[in-house]
Amino acid sequence: MGKQTKDQYVVGIDLGGTKILAGVVDARGKILGQAKRATKPDGGVDAVIERMAKTVREAVAAADLELSDIAAVCSCAPGTIDAERGVVRFAPNLHNWENVPLGKLLADALKVPAFIENDVNLGTLGEHVLGAGQGVRNLVGIFVGTGIGGGLILNGKLWGGWRGGAGEVGHTVVLAEGPVCGCGSRGCVEALASRTAIERDIWAGIKAGRPSIVPELMRKDDRQRLTSGVLAEAYDKGDALVREVIGRAQFYLGILVANLVNIIDPEMVIIGGGVAEALGKAYIEPIRPVAYQYFINKRGAEDVAIVPAKLGDHAALLGAAVYARQCLSE
Amino acid sequence: MGKQTKDQYVVGIDLGGTKILAGVVDARGKILGQAKRATKPDGGVDAVIERMAKTVREAVAAADLELSDIAAVCSCAPGTIDAERGVVRFAPNLHNWENVPLGKLLADALKVPAFIENDVNLGTLGEHVLGAGQGVRNLVGIFVGTGIGGGLILNGKLWGGWRGGAGEVGHTVVLAEGPVCGCGSRGCVEALASRTAIERDIWAGIKAGRPSIVPELMRKDDRQRLTSGVLAEAYDKGDALVREVIGRAQFYLGILVANLVNIIDPEMVIIGGGVAEALGKAYIEPIRPVAYQYFINKRGAEDVAIVPAKLGDHAALLGAAVYARQCLSE
Repeated sequence: MGKQTKDQYVVGIDLGGTKILAGVVDARGKILGQAKRATKPDGGVDAVIERMAKTVREAVAAADLELSDIAAVCSCAPGTIDAERGVVRFAPNLHNWENVPLGKLLADALKVPAFIENDVNLGTLGEHVLGAGQGVRNLVGIFVGTGIGGGLILNGKLWGGWRGGAGEVGHTVVLAEGPVCGCGSRGCVEALASRTAIERDIWAGIKAGRPSIVPELMRKDDRQRLTSGVLAEAYDKGDALVREVIGRAQFYLGILVANLVNIIDPEMVIIGGGVAEALGKAYIEPIRPVAYQYFINKRGAEDVAIVPAKLGDHAALLGAAVYARQCLSE
Repeated sequence: MGKQTKDQYVVGIDLGGTKILAGVVDARGKILGQAKRATKPDGGVDAVIERMAKTVREAVAAADLELSDIAAVCSCAPGTIDAERGVVRFAPNLHNWENVPLGKLLADALKVPAFIENDVNLGTLGEHVLGAGQGVRNLVGIFVGTGIGGGLILNGKLWGGWRGGAGEVGHTVVLAEGPVCGCGSRGCVEALASRTAIERDIWAGIKAGRPSIVPELMRKDDRQRLTSGVLAEAYDKGDALVREVIGRAQFYLGILVANLVNIIDPEMVIIGGGVAEALGKAYIEPIRPVAYQYFINKRGAEDVAIVPAKLGDHAALLGAAVYARQCLSE
């Protein structure tokens, strides 16, 4: 590899409700150095910005670089983002941040151009440029974790929508008058297929007296919550309740995939996120046939690829780096 | 109005399973002459092309013009269209046309450049350029008739998707495992809110002995089918069964609107089609509050306009004319 100019380095930041992850990324999408710390959103906006700036400086040091070598930073944030103005409109997972000018605050703290975007939008962009969607101009990303988020790449570009609100695929109602969702609506796919929904249904089964190894696995690991790891272990061991509940979640995800394909007609649907990562590639196998069954265009249905994400925990960070480069070159 | 050059005239054709409607349209979107005849798709492809060509010639004559004054024609077709290649991939309502090179056949018959697109896509384009969506760069059109179709305008352009299949909003599943749809899937909004679905539910009520003025209205007009006109009359007269069934259809349409807004984030949603036309502007009133309730971004929800279509029966014809002009100028 030849000598790199400073324009080739950017920092991607994955800002979540729990942790801040920052990484220096070169022009080829390689992470040269990274750092991580807790978000602690209860400390307020200024404290979070300070922790973000500190994490960026550490990542830069870990890459053996100086802040002056960095052409731009880009952070994702969980919530509604006005990317053009660099403002977090509303982020419930960050202790209800409202109209926080995150872009400006980061640029002021680091003296480096700073951009922001929604976390799942950037995850989708990362998969598009560096992951499972390389070379595919039209795709949808679906990320299944505590909630369900997504992003759209149309004509090779991130589609943010009119107000930066596009890609909220988890709040597609697929079962009208179904279970209440975290958003207040009913029957959203997030209320049927997220880890939160799976957890709810597994506990309901256990409380009703159905046998399951989940309580034993949680005791063994001294865990308080039904993590994706516990879920994966119970699934791998063939726990009937866990398999049934996850099977239903996969059915609803298949319907979500079909809805998105019928509306948008993309070439590819990428499925990632904590649940998908933990359960492995087999997780998407039962989703495919349901999706294909519900496509309106059943001829050539399987030409639309339904594939697992490739970048794992780094999707948003790498997507942020890609986005920073795109913003710089515009 | 000044003298017009021949480039200002195009012909839009609305090809449906029942009728062919052709109109000469000037640069301002004014229809200068039109003609109409039955499609008779049972006669085969060649016979339909001949009938289309004849209808175009009549429309041109009605506008006091010659075919040599026409810069291009554009026809819609009901079904899956490969607009780039000018091919109707599959059209169940045209006696199962499959891979019919409609564009080439029309161009050969008329010796004029010919383009084709999907009917509801063109209806949406017509509303965008000449109807309810003028000046709005991002919108979704929903057309409720025998079925439910739609189209997307993104960044001021018709979004056809990867293979021309985008906008099949009627086949968004909103009630998993709900009633069987014409497409073979279950729980599509078309199986819950189209005229076909409304008709099914009204007959079910009548057969179970519920009172309704529908049978009387049909006898009076000597009608065989529950047309949109009968529906509108029964609705206006306060028929309880009809109001209840249409109320449920409106609920599901509200959920469809919310799904589309949550996924795509458009500025406007336009609702048209035979049912909407017949029931009048009041039809969309109950749809709005349901849609706004199900938006994930409830702040500023009402900034997203939900409005009735303006072009009525001429939406597809005018959209075809607009599309022809766009194709010529590319």
